[in-house]
Amino acid sequence: MYNIAIAQSGGPTSAINASLAGVFAEGATNEFIDEIYGSENGIEGILNDRLINLRNIIIDEHDKQLLMITPSTILGSCRFKLKSYTEDESSYIKILETFEKHNIKAFFYIGGNDSMDTVMKLDAYFKSKSIDIKVVGVPKTIDNDLPETDHTPGFGSAAKYVATSLQEIIRDSRVYSVQSVTIVEIMGRDAGWLTASSCVLRANGEPAPHLIYLPEGQFSPEKYLTDLKEMLARYKAVLVAVSEGIRFPGAVYDDTKDAFGHTQNAGIGKILENYTKEHLGCKVRSIELNVMQRCSSHIASLTDIEEAERIGRAAVNAAVNQSKSGVMMTFKRISNNPYRVEIVDTEIEKVANKEKKFPEKWITAEGNNVSIDALNYFLPLIQGEPVIEYRNGIPVHFRLDQ
Amino acid sequence: MYNIAIAQSGGPTSAINASLAGVFAEGATNEFIDEIYGSENGIEGILNDRLINLRNIIIDEHDKQLLMITPSTILGSCRFKLKSYTEDESSYIKILETFEKHNIKAFFYIGGNDSMDTVMKLDAYFKSKSIDIKVVGVPKTIDNDLPETDHTPGFGSAAKYVATSLQEIIRDSRVYSVQSVTIVEIMGRDAGWLTASSCVLRANGEPAPHLIYLPEGQFSPEKYLTDLKEMLARYKAVLVAVSEGIRFPGAVYDDTKDAFGHTQNAGIGKILENYTKEHLGCKVRSIELNVMQRCSSHIASLTDIEEAERIGRAAVNAAVNQSKSGVMMTFKRISNNPYRVEIVDTEIEKVANKEKKFPEKWITAEGNNVSIDALNYFLPLIQGEPVIEYRNGIPVHFRLDQ
Repeated sequence: MYNIAIAQSGGPTSAINASLAGVFAEGATNEFIDEIYGSENGIEGILNDRLINLRNIIIDEHDKQLLMITPSTILGSCRFKLKSYTEDESSYIKILETFEKHNIKAFFYIGGNDSMDTVMKLDAYFKSKSIDIKVVGVPKTIDNDLPETDHTPGFGSAAKYVATSLQEIIRDSRVYSVQSVTIVEIMGRDAGWLTASSCVLRANGEPAPHLIYLPEGQFSPEKYLTDLKEMLARYKAVLVAVSEGIRFPGAVYDDTKDAFGHTQNAGIGKILENYTKEHLGCKVRSIELNVMQRCSSHIASLTDIEEAERIGRAAVNAAVNQSKSGVMMTFKRISNNPYRVEIVDTEIEKVANKEKKFPEKWITAEGNNVSIDALNYFLPLIQGEPVIEYRNGIPVHFRLDQ
Repeated sequence: MYNIAIAQSGGPTSAINASLAGVFAEGATNEFIDEIYGSENGIEGILNDRLINLRNIIIDEHDKQLLMITPSTILGSCRFKLKSYTEDESSYIKILETFEKHNIKAFFYIGGNDSMDTVMKLDAYFKSKSIDIKVVGVPKTIDNDLPETDHTPGFGSAAKYVATSLQEIIRDSRVYSVQSVTIVEIMGRDAGWLTASSCVLRANGEPAPHLIYLPEGQFSPEKYLTDLKEMLARYKAVLVAVSEGIRFPGAVYDDTKDAFGHTQNAGIGKILENYTKEHLGCKVRSIELNVMQRCSSHIASLTDIEEAERIGRAAVNAAVNQSKSGVMMTFKRISNNPYRVEIVDTEIEKVANKEKKFPEKWITAEGNNVSIDALNYFLPLIQGEPVIEYRNGIPVHFRLDQ
């Protein structure tokens, strides 16, 4: 008998806790596993020996169900980058100390491409020292930009929130008799997957969003105005979905410094709003969906939540029953209709620090929308609604502290 | 037998269509009523004879159910102010022409305090001419700022969305180990009801939002910093709910002109974000919940939707069976536990162009939160969840056009 540990790193999603629940549930019933530790704030908790025995907090099936539909992560996260062990071994030694102290033989790290760098480095370190500790990555990101996997847990719920909100926003924006343009800025600094996913509204006959701009395409302000005029000739209220990763030519961006409200630090939504107002006479507004995109678990995708749990379970199986290490679990889409995925693992080197862009072939020739292939890819990921428990009219969250 | 007409004016909510459905359903079964016309874009549709026969579009119970959970208004809205008829009778003559042409004997106007001005003026005009056309107001606003009524349809759903989102945002903001301040700007230009309603999270033991600032209170930037420091001493992540109506001393506001991204036109959330960054060293971000507050029907309050339908029905009863005119329908809270309201009418003069502020007695002595009495007032209004119909993973809306 030995113990396992789990941690989460990077930005929150609505499905991380479901993966945590999956690792826990599989670990709790595995004959080789005794305790299942959660590490506070990602790898920082391992470095500083801040572990939570999950058996003490996830007591019954009701706890697990609540956990699965609680957004963000109950364990906290971090943005910690391990140096190479040949450069500085100190963190590795501290991590190993924690693992040995608690008899931890397998470590699961839920995260995106940065977090997979940690999985890769830890695995390489343990292998170099012939230490038998398995390290397995569990994917997670609303950006959907991890290579090797058909999609990432957390993405489907974000896409469902975006589609649901955009449909409500188009209802709202059509209310007056005057023409209007509504620009919605959607997350995805480098990859346009989430913005592109707003095309799912077309499956229900909704023409909005009328224009979709992704960082993978070529953005030209002049072409944008032409696109907009064409749409305004056909629709009273035009909805534009724009990825936060779009760069407006000439605008000065400074994402790393604190913003003090100066125009150059405004998001692309605000920049496009101002540009549109300058060049067109109609009513224009911009909306930033902000962090609600990654934490609106009340409108989570059941498919996403269930898959996130399954991939957590599969990670435990891979490490414990198949002795895998230095891998990340991935979804492989076997069939689209009916939608079926299987879970396999991939070498961590193929994922760490890499990103998967939205395919250019799915961007229309005009560069202002996406193809039916993209729609078919996205649609299965947003299906189904988890049962949400309400108390006092508000969804109940699984909470460890205040 | 005669006909009736209905229109909606002012900003969208998630419950307007439910009131429309209520007027329609009651009208459709009333022995005196033949056709029920919907007027496009508020009173503008009456002025220009753009009427829709609602019997042709709301065919069955399923249509009605869909309509009730579709946000905004299928009839469109307007921001039209009638001049006094003694000053300019031309609009009144056109309105009367439309009513006479279609044998319309009762007109229902769903709206806020501005729209009730139209109800008041039309009723006064018809009475002055001894014309027997009933004019009845049906309240609607997410701002909850109408006098005489316990609360307004649309408010409960907005409050449920705000509370649900704030709870998710606090989960999201707690994820890193560093201290942070998250400022959420909530709608309500003159009245703080919606911002104050975020206190409902306390009913589930959630301390967020830790600070609540309303336009009805005195806002001092220095006191705000003191409040924030106190909260940061107790909580890792502090959530501030601030009404858009708060004015920051010294900031130049220009709400009427188009904004071109200049700092003085930023919302209070952004202004407070910048101010906080300047004075405190921690991570700060601001979030604007924007129009999602008024159109997120996927998380509507069932209590709100059902009451909106009931008050629409009651308006028809008042006009047709009780010969009322020049009144607005109101909710009277009979009991809070169990929650019970009855619907009565009030003279339109008591409502038109007037607004009801959030009570000062419900603001705490420190001016940075609200009392338990406020919580008890708000809580019943957000209870229950309507059944949402999904198609392709997206809520189905009742739609007339694109």
